[in-house]
Order: sequence, then C-alpha cells, then structure tokens
Amino acid sequence: MSVPSEMKALLLVGDGYTKTPSAGVPETMEPYLKSGSIAVPVPGFSQVLIKVGLASINPSDIAFIKGQYGQPRVKGRPAGFEGVGIVVATGDDAYARSLQGKRVAFATGLSNWGSWAEYAVAEAAPCIPLLDTVRDEDGAAMIVNPLTALAMFDIVKQEGEKAFIMTAGASQLCKLIIGLAKEDGFRPIVTVRRDEQITSLTALGAAHVLNEKASDFEPRLREVMTAEQPRIFLDAVTGPLASAIFNAMPKRSRWIVYGRLDAGPTVIREPGQLIFQHKRVEGFWLAEWMRQFRDKLGPAVLEAQRRFSDRRWSTDVTAVVPMDEAMARLPAELARPDGKVFIRP
Amino acid sequence: MSVPSEMKALLLVGDGYTKTPSAGVPETMEPYLKSGSIAVPVPGFSQVLIKVGLASINPSDIAFIKGQYGQPRVKGRPAGFEGVGIVVATGDDAYARSLQGKRVAFATGLSNWGSWAEYAVAEAAPCIPLLDTVRDEDGAAMIVNPLTALAMFDIVKQEGEKAFIMTAGASQLCKLIIGLAKEDGFRPIVTVRRDEQITSLTALGAAHVLNEKASDFEPRLREVMTAEQPRIFLDAVTGPLASAIFNAMPKRSRWIVYGRLDAGPTVIREPGQLIFQHKRVEGFWLAEWMRQFRDKLGPAVLEAQRRFSDRRWSTDVTAVVPMDEAMARLPAELARPDGKVFIRP
Repeated sequence: MSVPSEMKALLLVGDGYTKTPSAGVPETMEPYLKSGSIAVPVPGFSQVLIKVGLASINPSDIAFIKGQYGQPRVKGRPAGFEGVGIVVATGDDAYARSLQGKRVAFATGLSNWGSWAEYAVAEAAPCIPLLDTVRDEDGAAMIVNPLTALAMFDIVKQEGEKAFIMTAGASQLCKLIIGLAKEDGFRPIVTVRRDEQITSLTALGAAHVLNEKASDFEPRLREVMTAEQPRIFLDAVTGPLASAIFNAMPKRSRWIVYGRLDAGPTVIREPGQLIFQHKRVEGFWLAEWMRQFRDKLGPAVLEAQRRFSDRRWSTDVTAVVPMDEAMARLPAELARPDGKVFIRP
Repeated sequence: MSVPSEMKALLLVGDGYTKTPSAGVPETMEPYLKSGSIAVPVPGFSQVLIKVGLASINPSDIAFIKGQYGQPRVKGRPAGFEGVGIVVATGDDAYARSLQGKRVAFATGLSNWGSWAEYAVAEAAPCIPLLDTVRDEDGAAMIVNPLTALAMFDIVKQEGEKAFIMTAGASQLCKLIIGLAKEDGFRPIVTVRRDEQITSLTALGAAHVLNEKASDFEPRLREVMTAEQPRIFLDAVTGPLASAIFNAMPKRSRWIVYGRLDAGPTVIREPGQLIFQHKRVEGFWLAEWMRQFRDKLGPAVLEAQRRFSDRRWSTDVTAVVPMDEAMARLPAELARPDGKVFIRP
C-alpha cells in the first residue's frame, strides 16, 4: 500500500496545559481543533504506521484537547488517543514488522501522534491484532474504556464488598463495568441524569439507578447507602454530586476520582469522616495503572477482545462522523447521551 | 487512702453527636459542660480508680465535649481524655492490682469516664507508671499528644522525603514532632498565625515557618513547596488554608487530616491532581492507630517517657486552672496561643 507524504487531520490549537479549565463538551471545536494538512509521520524503531479506519472520541480526548489532561498538548499535532486501522508501514523491530498488513486496535498515548487523522503512529507493543469477529466500532474503542473498566472493577473486587457506586452511570465505561459486575454477582449503584436511562441500566445489571435530578435524590441516596453499604465510589463527575455521595457513604469508603465532568467545587463536606471513619479520597489514571501493572495488561487486552467477540460487550454508537464534517458536527453529536462518537478519516 | 462516695466533676451537657458542628474554642463552656457532683465510679475487673492530680485539655477534648469527636457523648458523665494521678483502688486483674498506690499517666478513652473530675476510671493496660523524673504537667499530657506525634512522624519516616508540612505549627503536638524531626535530620515546614511564633519554632527545628496571615503567604508557600518537595501534609486545620497547601504540593502528596480547627469549606481545588498526580486525601486517628499497631504501643510509650524525663520534650504550660474556676476561666485560657491548659481537681 503506497503512503502519501501529506494527510488530513484534526490538529491541536493549544499548547501545554490550559490556565482556564472548563467542564463538559465544548460548544464549538474552533478554540481547540483545526482541520488541516500535515506530513504523514514516519514510524520509529518500535512503532507502526496505521491507516486509520475509525477513531473514537473518549471523555479523556475532550479533556486533552482542552489542555486539562495529565499530558501536555503539542500545538499543530493531530489529536486522538485511540482507533482501529491497518498497519501500512513499520519500524525495524521484529514485533512491529510482524504487524504489517494487520488490522489492529491502537492507542497513541506513548507516540504523541493522534488518531484523528488519515494516518497515525503508535507503539507496536500495545497494539492489538484483531479477530475478524470484532467490529471496527468495537476495535476503535478497545483500549481506553475496556482496560479502564477491567482495572477499576479489579479495585472493586479487591475491596470485597458486593455493592459499589458510580457516577455518569450511562457512560460507555460504566456500562462495561455494569456488565462485568453482573456476571460476578456484584451490585453496582449508579447515578444518571435522565429517567429514560433507568430501565436499560437496570436490565444491564445495575442494582440501583438514581436520577441525580430527582427531587428526592438525597434521601433515596442515603436509603440505598444504608441498605447496600458500598465502599468503593468510582467517580467521573466530582463537584457537588460527588461530595454528597461521598458524605453519605459508610466507614472506610474510598472515593476514586477518574474524571471531572462537573467543574463545580469539590468539597469534602465532613473532614471528620476522614479522621474517625477512615474514609479517603484518591484518583485513578489508566496510564498510571498501566505503568504499575504491566503484567496485567496482556490478560486484560485478551479479555476485552473476547468480550467484544462474543458480544457480552458491545459499543453503543451515537454517530460516525466523516472527518471533513467533524469541526461542525462534533459539539452536537457529543452532547447526545448514552453512546460513543467516532471519526472516520 | 479512703475513697468518698461522691465527687466533684465537669459533666457533659450533651448526648451523642451534635448536629451543628462549630470550629475552635467555645466562647462559653455552659452549652457543653456543667460543674456538678456524681458518684465516684467503681473500677471494673481490668480497671483502676485514680485520684486525679492534673488533667489536661487537648483539642480532641474540645471536639468531644462539642459532640464532634468520633465517639458519642454520654450526658452527665465527666469529660476529659487524659490525666495524671495516684491509683487508689483497682479491679481484681493482676496487672491492675500491681498499679495500686502508683502515680500513673492515664487515658480514659476505653472506660468512657472522664478525667475532669476528682476521681477517674481507666483501663489498667494503657496506664503508664511514671518515673519520679517526670513532672505532673508532662505526665498529664503523656498519652494523646506524644503518641500522636510518634505515630504521625512514623508516617513521615516511612514516606522517606526529608521535608514535610504541618498546619497549626505552634501547637504542643507540632512542637513535639518538630523535636523528633530535628534529631533525625528531617525538614518540617509549618504554618502559624503570628509572626512572634516564627523565632521559637525555627530554634526548635522548623526548616520554614510560614505565617498564613501574611500578604505574601501563597507565593511563599509555592516557593517553599518547589524547593522542598514535601509529600506528607499533617493537617489539624482543614478549610481554605489546607486546600491551598494541598494544591501547591507536588506529585504523590498525601494530605493527612487529624483535626478540624477551621469550619470553613474544605475544597479539593483541582481534582485532576488526584488523577494525574496521584495525590490523595486521608485521615489520622490515634484510637484507630492504636487498634492497628498494638505492637508499637509499648515502645512508643517508653520512648515518650524517656523524652520527657531527659527534657528533650517538655510541655509548655499556659495555665493550671482549679476545677472550681474552670467553667469561668477556660474560654479565655484556651484562647491563648502556644501552650497547654490543665485542670486541677
């Protein structure tokens, strides 16, 4: 396959980190992204060049393009943390060369060259050669969310309590975790913002689905906390909602923050609980988990692929947006609840 | 020694926990304490009855009488967590009987009968028979603060970084920790509220003393954090001051809350630091530490007594207030900075 020298891509407008963080999906993409042309990158020794078939958009991508993710932006480089595509060139490393011509799921975190482009560069080692039974939509979303789901559910299993609680319960990530939890007899409690989400999440395996917008949310929350005694709180939201949940949790609870969808103040309502009830607040970052638990990575990747192949897991697709239309359409598509948005270069 | 059937004591006015927490020293004691008479308690099998010589007042006592401590109040019982006195009666247990007639430092946490009284009941096991070289003022303050100091400094030593930071730097507790740190070549950074406290704390061994009321506090704080890179934050204050300190600390920092002197909102300013910088928030409670580390208790108690005997440690005395005058005088005495207030029954 011949590789051109130039390609189209969605390029980062900002550099480094922002000084003015904001929450949620942007109303326009222009402050953060620019549609443009750039030289096709050349893969390094241990890298592969991928003709991108489909690139996914995760909440971490949104945080990154806004300069609020734990990795600095490089102005003018393509954005995008993961995708699926065909390996069209490789470095000299033997494993990289073995991937030539294969369809792979890939992540760009280590290469610093994004997936929202016609071609992307990725380290070969974490690339996942895909079975034909895996759809492109699942392959393009096979690394960030699935590994996060497996890693965070591992924390729940280690804690031992069957009940645990999650905010942003209708996210793709939470749905993956609810699926894992149901199989193992765990009892996920989740919060959502729409009553319509209650039935499907209950069917998926949620023990309780609480609408944070309901007038009786706080009394219902306390009722459920008392009955279920969850000790692990996986939180994508922070702000007042998360503060209320942590406050209502029992002794020895752990508030594990992995996202920041609400920019509101994140208050520890009763610091005495830290002292007398041994409660604590910490964070989860997939990149850090991967560094710490390299040995768990292989089995986790295999497990994710199995689950997508036999349809125990499946990615809900909100929209597949051609890259040419991305600048205009992304804000509205990303604002729709429940599913994942993809970019097709 | 003959023991009367009735005694004078400062009795708890409230029951259980308060629903309206407040910060700091109360303006009057009447909402919390009542001077009165009560039957002298009878020691149980493993307990001793102590004629109280001197009882100390710790910040935890103030939190307790206000119903803000991790143990419920029993209305009408004497307050007071520790003191020094002579054992005048004992239960049948052999170790308890061996303490008869001895001067001991004692803590009442397990007996639920306070030390602010002519007689107190305590479990014999944690009582510390005192060397003659230990002053009453040191003996009456030998358990809560010294064990907390040794336990928390142990956390600092385990972390490994030489620098660490503490709020309420002029407290008796912090002075004990600064002493320990100096000997072992650690670099305590402390915050205070008065410039007058800077010289004496520096002489004691503080590497930096920052006045939180100074107009350049935040820039100076950031400067010191950058230079010293402390990872452990021992916090008696919470609220906006603690929020600012935690925010300025480096990667992998631990905010360890053990007191709540400021009732202001305790905000995690940048929850992203929990995710990307692996920072976390937790608590320290001596009672919990004693349960977890029973084996460290004996050596810690011995170490505390040695340090008071050879004057490496010494308790600064603000006032010794006769129990009859306590209701009237305590608010003013407790509001004075730097030293400890005692009650003499």
